[in-house]
Amino acid sequence: MSEKKITILGGGTGSFVVLTALKKQGLDLAAVVTMMDSGGSTGRLRDQLGVLPPGDLRQCLVALSKAPKLWRKLFTYRFEKGDLAGHNFGNIMISALQKVSKNYDEVLDELHYLMHCVGRVYPAALSNADIQVTYTSGRVINSEKLLDESNPDEATIVNATAIPSVVANPKATTRILSSDYIIAGPGDLYSSIISVALVDGVSHAVQQSHAKLIYIMNIMTKASQTFKYPASKHISDFIKYFGREPDICIVNTDTVSPAMSALYATHHETQVIDDLTEVNFKGRIVRASLLDTFVHPRSTVESLSATFSHSIVRHDEHKLELCLKDLLK
Amino acid sequence: MSEKKITILGGGTGSFVVLTALKKQGLDLAAVVTMMDSGGSTGRLRDQLGVLPPGDLRQCLVALSKAPKLWRKLFTYRFEKGDLAGHNFGNIMISALQKVSKNYDEVLDELHYLMHCVGRVYPAALSNADIQVTYTSGRVINSEKLLDESNPDEATIVNATAIPSVVANPKATTRILSSDYIIAGPGDLYSSIISVALVDGVSHAVQQSHAKLIYIMNIMTKASQTFKYPASKHISDFIKYFGREPDICIVNTDTVSPAMSALYATHHETQVIDDLTEVNFKGRIVRASLLDTFVHPRSTVESLSATFSHSIVRHDEHKLELCLKDLLK
Repeated sequence: MSEKKITILGGGTGSFVVLTALKKQGLDLAAVVTMMDSGGSTGRLRDQLGVLPPGDLRQCLVALSKAPKLWRKLFTYRFEKGDLAGHNFGNIMISALQKVSKNYDEVLDELHYLMHCVGRVYPAALSNADIQVTYTSGRVINSEKLLDESNPDEATIVNATAIPSVVANPKATTRILSSDYIIAGPGDLYSSIISVALVDGVSHAVQQSHAKLIYIMNIMTKASQTFKYPASKHISDFIKYFGREPDICIVNTDTVSPAMSALYATHHETQVIDDLTEVNFKGRIVRASLLDTFVHPRSTVESLSATFSHSIVRHDEHKLELCLKDLLK
Repeated sequence: MSEKKITILGGGTGSFVVLTALKKQGLDLAAVVTMMDSGGSTGRLRDQLGVLPPGDLRQCLVALSKAPKLWRKLFTYRFEKGDLAGHNFGNIMISALQKVSKNYDEVLDELHYLMHCVGRVYPAALSNADIQVTYTSGRVINSEKLLDESNPDEATIVNATAIPSVVANPKATTRILSSDYIIAGPGDLYSSIISVALVDGVSHAVQQSHAKLIYIMNIMTKASQTFKYPASKHISDFIKYFGREPDICIVNTDTVSPAMSALYATHHETQVIDDLTEVNFKGRIVRASLLDTFVHPRSTVESLSATFSHSIVRHDEHKLELCLKDLLK
């Protein structure tokens, strides 16, 4: 598996799991992350790994760091007392780096260096934008709401755009063009994955790249983004924005526990139905047991919400590692 | 020169120069630094390297870092606006590390790791103390004044103590005991060098160690600490507190420029007279051209004080490197 160039498209906890799974493999690893930030929201039950720092870029940097625990702690630490009360250390550090550096590229170089990253994180764009989606119901909402809101109309997204439009970071497209494998997902389809394609130049690079394109299917639907989506609908929405069908689709075969199903049902979310066939998907379908079945202990009855956030349905890092190892050989 | 264990005793800009000179040599390098801080003073003309962060520990960490420029910038960066105005980033970072870590040892581990240090910095003691000196005139002053004050009585220090008394960090004494070479100086004799010996247990370890003890003689006297001291008096004061005569003494042979001499004269400071002989020093005397003769350009006439602080008399890092390389073979 050595020296293969692997590039992850996305952001969020899904990319965190994939990068963590791959980083010990001695691969040439990179992530092209959305700058339509899907990690800044606080009011949601979505942090599948417990506490991750806000921001896709930071999450990917932590995932690629040789000291992920230390950086997770530092990036999520918030001062409690004095002048600094309420300030997040991660923000303070990046702000200090910006002040002592020539430009954002230098800040990124320094962050990789300070964090001892194996691999490289490229922002898809060098300026910020917001993803805006329009539903079949006519409702229009932005990124933040995509994460927090349920889907009152039980509608489907018909269009997504970046506001304002942004052009791709040349280093990101260069990386995509020179990759051997591109991996998209798992993750929130619109706010983490498609948001990368909304940056002008990214989908063109994905189309032009000789890389094998691997799509890792989500285990659960998401009410505001993929309401009642079966697997095939994830793929067709992906193709709509990236302009290219995945060469491989990895699908979990495990069934989510009834307790978890019930919890998700309260959010109008269900397990993704695997309806992929040779007819609706031309690529190779890899089906494997990928569910993280470890139930994190409930330390106290009072910490119910904490328990939920720690035992939420997600891909198992080690199962995913084995599955990918096989494919990337 | 590989794998020899070298330990620097001290702190301050002198140690910074020695560590910088040695760090590229693939040696097993460490510094045992005074916690009687000689780097926190602001009102003095003493920063021989331009801007160094406050604190002996931080200065040594920066010297040993693979990215000294970045860390120098970060540690000396002070926020100018908003809630953080006036706060130094170095302090904020160390405070955050303390909050997310179990103990001070872990904080030190993390600092070495974050800063990519080649080698290790050990605080001589794990609690803070102040150095207090008594002059022949009867005047008693503390550390801070040792750095800032001139010497109004033109008196000599007759006694130095740590207030309160502190015991040595076991890791520091273990390191001293297992070293092949111990290097003291250059640096302010009392506030940087002898202050390490004032920690209970340090001088005993230096006496017990089989390491060769190298003393690098200062180029200039310092009014408040070594007023009119010739080389031999530096050595005798060193022996008084460390209880051991150096095996080797390195002495600069270059003469300081008339302009620099005149500048120092206004502070009642002169070039150290080399009066070492076989009679007053039993060890080996190594005489070499060690003066940094590069005159840093005066960018504007107005930045007179900046010009002074940048072209102050100091050891040349590369000349010192060559000289030590020869001795440590």
